[in-house]
Amino acid sequence: MPQLTVRGIAVERLVSVSKPMVEELAAVCGCGKDNFTIDRLATTSVFEGKTTETYPFVEVAWFERGRDVRDRVAETITRFVRQAGVPEVEVAFKEYSEAAYYINGIACDSGES
Amino acid sequence: MPQLTVRGIAVERLVSVSKPMVEELAAVCGCGKDNFTIDRLATTSVFEGKTTETYPFVEVAWFERGRDVRDRVAETITRFVRQAGVPEVEVAFKEYSEAAYYINGIACDSGES
Amino acid sequence: MPQLTVRGIAVERLVSVSKPMVEELAAVCGCGKDNFTIDRLATTSVFEGKTTETYPFVEVAWFERGRDVRDRVAETITRFVRQAGVPEVEVAFKEYSEAAYYINGIACDSGES
Repeated sequence: MPQLTVRGIAVERLVSVSKPMVEELAAVCGCGKDNFTIDRLATTSVFEGKTTETYPFVEVAWFERGRDVRDRVAETITRFVRQAGVPEVEVAFKEYSEAAYYINGIACDSGES
Repeated sequence: MPQLTVRGIAVERLVSVSKPMVEELAAVCGCGKDNFTIDRLATTSVFEGKTTETYPFVEVAWFERGRDVRDRVAETITRFVRQAGVPEVEVAFKEYSEAAYYINGIACDSGES
Repeated sequence: MPQLTVRGIAVERLVSVSKPMVEELAAVCGCGKDNFTIDRLATTSVFEGKTTETYPFVEVAWFERGRDVRDRVAETITRFVRQAGVPEVEVAFKEYSEAAYYINGIACDSGES
């Protein structure tokens, strides 16, 4: 974590910006680069009775870090997605609780590691 | 938003009902039709040691609009999914917070647009 | 529900452990085996400017059952995923509210069934 789950942005576009984007996100969040994952979902979208391109969307699943960091994470992702050639994107944050997140069976609030 | 993320319902079935379903959902929610997205996830499901069909499920990600609207959105989706030939479906709502949802880098609670 | 949404674990690995895993989860949760679904998402992951394998992750969507049950569900999933040959896995819980979960159009808090 943070875990970026992406839909509606081509893999090649993500590949093209992933390295500098994650470097900057790691600096903003104050954590290591290898804490980040970027997973693109395979989707088929439908609108007005036809299949259509999926609207570009990034969900960031994380432990809440407060308004300032959240704003900067959203701004960073938006800027790199645009740089990758996607003019519009929405970014939403989903909070996980440390008490309900388990790494290899150990809850993140347990003090163990 | 609202964003409908669907699993376990064939694309052709979604295509067949998407237009009238979204028209009705827009009326229920009091927003434009083009605020809605319908994304179907590619899934493989497993049960009892075998792959199986994915159970029909629709997650509605949105800003909370209260019980009455929620009930009517769930009823509308359920009715159209049945009309598309799927007898059983579960619908769940996931709330996003306006302070944690960014459109082109601007938070939805910011007053900017 | 509970609904297990999996990424980064091969379908064959899930198939190999799904039966005993769900039997044990049903005992832990005190509900029927057929309440559980296991859906694997199709994903493409990106890291450091390249596509990469998706990190093994299981999201459990459910109605909250408290710390003890949650710990045991996480432990059970982790143990079976390891038995399937995946050494590391993260498990996170996403709560749905009974008032916002509809089975065939009926909310789960409605008293109807």
